[in-house]
Amino acid sequence: MPLLSAEELTDLSVKILVAAGVCQKNAKLVSTHLASANLCGVDSHGLIRIPQYVRAIRNGEMNPNADITVVRETASTALIDGGNGFGQVACEAAMNIAIEKAEKATVSAVGLFKSFHIGRLADYAEMAVKRGMIGVVACNSPAWVAPWGGTQRLLGTNPICFAIPSGQSRPILVDVSTSASSEGKVRVKQARGEVLPEGWIVNSKGTGSTNPSDLYEGGALLPMGAHKGFGLALVIDILAGALTIGQIDGEVPRPFNNVFLEAINIEGFRPLKDFQATVDRLIKRLRACPPAAGFEKVVIPGEPDFELREKRLKEGIPIEDSTWDDIKSLCEELRVDCRS
Amino acid sequence: MPLLSAEELTDLSVKILVAAGVCQKNAKLVSTHLASANLCGVDSHGLIRIPQYVRAIRNGEMNPNADITVVRETASTALIDGGNGFGQVACEAAMNIAIEKAEKATVSAVGLFKSFHIGRLADYAEMAVKRGMIGVVACNSPAWVAPWGGTQRLLGTNPICFAIPSGQSRPILVDVSTSASSEGKVRVKQARGEVLPEGWIVNSKGTGSTNPSDLYEGGALLPMGAHKGFGLALVIDILAGALTIGQIDGEVPRPFNNVFLEAINIEGFRPLKDFQATVDRLIKRLRACPPAAGFEKVVIPGEPDFELREKRLKEGIPIEDSTWDDIKSLCEELRVDCRS
Repeated sequence: MPLLSAEELTDLSVKILVAAGVCQKNAKLVSTHLASANLCGVDSHGLIRIPQYVRAIRNGEMNPNADITVVRETASTALIDGGNGFGQVACEAAMNIAIEKAEKATVSAVGLFKSFHIGRLADYAEMAVKRGMIGVVACNSPAWVAPWGGTQRLLGTNPICFAIPSGQSRPILVDVSTSASSEGKVRVKQARGEVLPEGWIVNSKGTGSTNPSDLYEGGALLPMGAHKGFGLALVIDILAGALTIGQIDGEVPRPFNNVFLEAINIEGFRPLKDFQATVDRLIKRLRACPPAAGFEKVVIPGEPDFELREKRLKEGIPIEDSTWDDIKSLCEELRVDCRS
Repeated sequence: MPLLSAEELTDLSVKILVAAGVCQKNAKLVSTHLASANLCGVDSHGLIRIPQYVRAIRNGEMNPNADITVVRETASTALIDGGNGFGQVACEAAMNIAIEKAEKATVSAVGLFKSFHIGRLADYAEMAVKRGMIGVVACNSPAWVAPWGGTQRLLGTNPICFAIPSGQSRPILVDVSTSASSEGKVRVKQARGEVLPEGWIVNSKGTGSTNPSDLYEGGALLPMGAHKGFGLALVIDILAGALTIGQIDGEVPRPFNNVFLEAINIEGFRPLKDFQATVDRLIKRLRACPPAAGFEKVVIPGEPDFELREKRLKEGIPIEDSTWDDIKSLCEELRVDCRS
């Protein structure tokens, strides 16, 4: 299993993307997000995505150098057409617009449609934190999840992420999908010949199942927390897909996203320092909470991401052999030297 | 079990509250919200609350005729001091301000602190729908819930409600707490001598328990969906409690709430009719989804509320005998005729 530094990973990714026809600027931006995902342990949104991206460029599904257009705008809102381009490029632009608007208007909401896969949501939410704001990013995604009480895949795993500044160096990051599990986790269990926990999937008849294969034979993922996760997935579908003139679930082409973003400028409500002091008090109380049976401690949301990032920045990012093989083949094909 | 019409319930509630020192206007507003909760089947936020409210007025904990003050304001945001008065009065004022601001600014966010119990969240979120907007209401509440992996009650059941206009008469209403169960449901199970489903509570040692009594002997409710509900509860705590200069969980006096409200003016993004048509398409697809084993159909969030409201408007609202006894005693004490 090769071990790449974040810089090596980024450089390699830039070279491949540029060779595939992506402009230098977009290649750098996308690669930085891929490396960020790998650093935080969200490997499913890291280097492993490159072959998919290159395929999408080649078959014309995605325009890597698309123009990003603001199609509608007020002092506090914007609706953005991503031009079927890179999600990372469009979503970073969307959050920058949200932040600029919240600088003046205190609170802003931005919708993004025609965007390819945006990757790790927290990357964009964290941008708001760096400007003393609360960042919110939610997206809908291709259908994998059944509504509560139903059998068909009609909803995406529709995640939502909140990033909240604390007084310490690390923000609180709450980044949760609204399904009980991701499809990726089911696939891993299948590959390992393991059974699933109860409550993850239904089979094609709508009966609960612990057999991973049932998901791929017409089954569906289940929402988290029964009707609650269903309700939240539906809200995200509507905010990200209906409000933004994008698609609603079941109509979202794979792997596109429609995105809803918000920025809340804390200073509009109270001095940032006072807010941060309250958040710090809350974190302190959570840390002091005696752990429940089977737990070492209460984990502050976001903490594992930051800890892994620090570790991988020092020790490097492990790339699975199968991913590395795919990358090597792609490099050969594109005449890119994968050993920098 | 007496059966009251919504009008009878409202009138009786007004008479009691006025006799307890509440001004006519506030008594009417609060009573309308209590009746609305009863109509929708949220009986825990209906007439049953009157004795608690009267007690809080008598012991000076709540000021029934408090002034509501906007302490900070921008074109799109407001921070509101509820003056330790009725939550229903303050929260209705807060949502009216959010709606007015969103009329001009497209999106708005309002914080409310020093507010007594606000009751049924959907009442306020629905106000936005009546103006062609998406309404969001979230609040924190006194601590009952342990953080994921912890043993202490540090979070409220922190609910969030979204109301979304459809093209049909009924909006989508997603109104969910972030805990696996409410305290009220555990109390009912205890009264009936039943055991709890797994995943509702931990005992004082932080071990999962199905014995309702364990909750009242130092135990805690669990978040819904493990770490996901914990993360969402934490976000709501921060939006409603930290951003609003209110209290964070564990410091919220019972039964006060801090509230975060948003209004999103759909016309700022796209014509309302187009949005409604998309939501209708989504509802139609959900209705057409074949039901899973053990279900009759996919229930559209909010539908049960509206159906029960229609039924109870016709047939009357059943009041439990124990609640009716308390109301009768209170009427005697206050020299109010409970038979109108």
